[in-house]
Amino acid sequence: MSPDESAMRAWAYLTRVAEPPHTGLRDLVEAEGPVAAAAAIQSRRVPAGFAGLLGATAARAGLDTAAADLDRAAQIDARLVTPDHDEWPGWQLWGLRSADTVARGGPPLALWVRGSKRLADEVRAGIGVIGARGSTSYGEYVTGQLVGGLVDAGWTVVSGGAFGIDGTAHRAALGCGGSTVAVMACGIDVDYPASHASLFTAIARDGLIVSEYPPGTTAARHRFLTRNRLVAALSTAVVVVEAGRRSGAANTAAWARKLGRPLGAVPGPVTSAMSIGCNRMIADEQAALVVGAQSLISLAAPDGRGGANGGPVRRIDDLSGDRLRAYEAIPGRGAITVDEIAVNAGIEVGRVMAALAMLEVDRFVTAVGDGWAIVRD
Amino acid sequence: MSPDESAMRAWAYLTRVAEPPHTGLRDLVEAEGPVAAAAAIQSRRVPAGFAGLLGATAARAGLDTAAADLDRAAQIDARLVTPDHDEWPGWQLWGLRSADTVARGGPPLALWVRGSKRLADEVRAGIGVIGARGSTSYGEYVTGQLVGGLVDAGWTVVSGGAFGIDGTAHRAALGCGGSTVAVMACGIDVDYPASHASLFTAIARDGLIVSEYPPGTTAARHRFLTRNRLVAALSTAVVVVEAGRRSGAANTAAWARKLGRPLGAVPGPVTSAMSIGCNRMIADEQAALVVGAQSLISLAAPDGRGGANGGPVRRIDDLSGDRLRAYEAIPGRGAITVDEIAVNAGIEVGRVMAALAMLEVDRFVTAVGDGWAIVRD
Repeated sequence: MSPDESAMRAWAYLTRVAEPPHTGLRDLVEAEGPVAAAAAIQSRRVPAGFAGLLGATAARAGLDTAAADLDRAAQIDARLVTPDHDEWPGWQLWGLRSADTVARGGPPLALWVRGSKRLADEVRAGIGVIGARGSTSYGEYVTGQLVGGLVDAGWTVVSGGAFGIDGTAHRAALGCGGSTVAVMACGIDVDYPASHASLFTAIARDGLIVSEYPPGTTAARHRFLTRNRLVAALSTAVVVVEAGRRSGAANTAAWARKLGRPLGAVPGPVTSAMSIGCNRMIADEQAALVVGAQSLISLAAPDGRGGANGGPVRRIDDLSGDRLRAYEAIPGRGAITVDEIAVNAGIEVGRVMAALAMLEVDRFVTAVGDGWAIVRD
Repeated sequence: MSPDESAMRAWAYLTRVAEPPHTGLRDLVEAEGPVAAAAAIQSRRVPAGFAGLLGATAARAGLDTAAADLDRAAQIDARLVTPDHDEWPGWQLWGLRSADTVARGGPPLALWVRGSKRLADEVRAGIGVIGARGSTSYGEYVTGQLVGGLVDAGWTVVSGGAFGIDGTAHRAALGCGGSTVAVMACGIDVDYPASHASLFTAIARDGLIVSEYPPGTTAARHRFLTRNRLVAALSTAVVVVEAGRRSGAANTAAWARKLGRPLGAVPGPVTSAMSIGCNRMIADEQAALVVGAQSLISLAAPDGRGGANGGPVRRIDDLSGDRLRAYEAIPGRGAITVDEIAVNAGIEVGRVMAALAMLEVDRFVTAVGDGWAIVRD
């Protein structure tokens, strides 16, 4: 087994050995690396200060389905994305490291991702569109209108794959040729709800299905709550289209506020039980009133970037690995060649070309004659 | 003709001699009194500084229909209420004296009032319920619900007598046994709109019809705008139930804000043209989001008075004449007799008893044994 394979086996083992998210487990992995951390847990000899982990991993320490999990993922066009991977949406997940949020889960250890797109790219300009499972035709109509406008402006629609507003949002995004990310409270290979099986197949084909739970994990109430923090974290802004008096959407909305994500809500008839939550969030000034895609986009990108003409928000902070090094090797003014970039960046020409291709897709750089230049806003 | 009759004739003459509201005319009346002011205008010899009035009154100075106007009013159970009358809602109209609002009309010179109730009493706890003429069934349903809750809590419903939300609000108030005040942009004897004739008859019977225009004045566009300031001024708070993109209700709402009256708006479907104005006022934080009577009452009486159990807001500031003197003659603690009140107040026993009766109805005072005591909140 190559070192890379060993590391992936260790990561896969670690995503299952304790119920995610587990702060102590993540701390151990960050301190020791995944291979040593996995070995420590398997051998029941964890470093001082991590004794609490022994209890949390006692039931599953001896159960190593890592190879099978990775095989299962590969069969369905899925993979395990880890923090050292350049597909890792590190910037988006950063807010989960605050003391306040770590106590309630913190960032995920790793993410199982199904679909051919790159996670970091998809969520760079993602807007969470969420709401009640028991949506009304009003909420579904508004969701369709909102999502159409978001897709036209180049945004990805992030949601939770549930009945009602979530499912309507995913379908609307796919229906108008946009991209969408479903963050699951179960394994990426589990169709929950079952009647969304074909929807999940479509999302995996044209977007991404994401989960911190290993393949085969069933949906459970506590997993919805931990999943909600990822919907908020992976969104630039979140809008609640409909929510009843007590709605799971309120939990995602609370996470959005905690993470500093702009939060919007669509007002609705005061006679509709499914608008009580939205109207209350607006009345309490927890959420901005959203009447359509444009007001939602203004909320997500108040500086005017990301509007209908500006395309999605591009964040240099979001670059990592070869792409960041290649980007930084290009001067602020004028163009330079690939060879020059390779020298400046200290990485080989083949990798520079691959990085430039991705940077061009995301409109960070543009080809100018024989060379490359930075795209200015 | 008695001095009182002469004064009333002068007041009636003055309400017609210039298009109300006229700041210069009001200033002259406040400086000279109504009889001298009317004589000055009729004789075309106004004091220095009031020369501008000659032009404004040129067309009508020689037209004296005052006696006929007062007769006409008497025929329909109406009267002219002037600032020296204890029925005058001086406290509510006070805000119209600010420099900012005087430039746009200021307080009315006098008010023609139709109906048997006392104006100051009716608007002491009045809430303006207004909205689009082209209301939807949603808006009408919500208006009925709101008004029902307001009436239950003892509030009077103030509106403009127009089609749509206004008419629905008046009808709902009457329908559940409440009181309502229609502020008109025409004479109190003019049925505008004509199809509201039976509604106006019902309002005059169980509530009040109010106008600063003399009898027979027809409705006109500019009169709607000046009328709107009175709807706002005579309301403790104002709620807009439905309003389109460009709605007259927005003008009344702007007056409410200018006068410091709490302003609410009912959210509605973002798909409804008749909720665009309301949703925008909420989004722009010009109006608080109102979902029902209780949130509206909280807006109008944030200290908790005026709630469903507390009855309407009672304002000592609103007392005047014998009632104020009688009220102030009663000590803060303990009870005293009518005779003692008469001595303290310096007014005769008969008038003290009449004042106490009204103070008791409004729950300012209560009978205790042989005497009277102040009601504490």
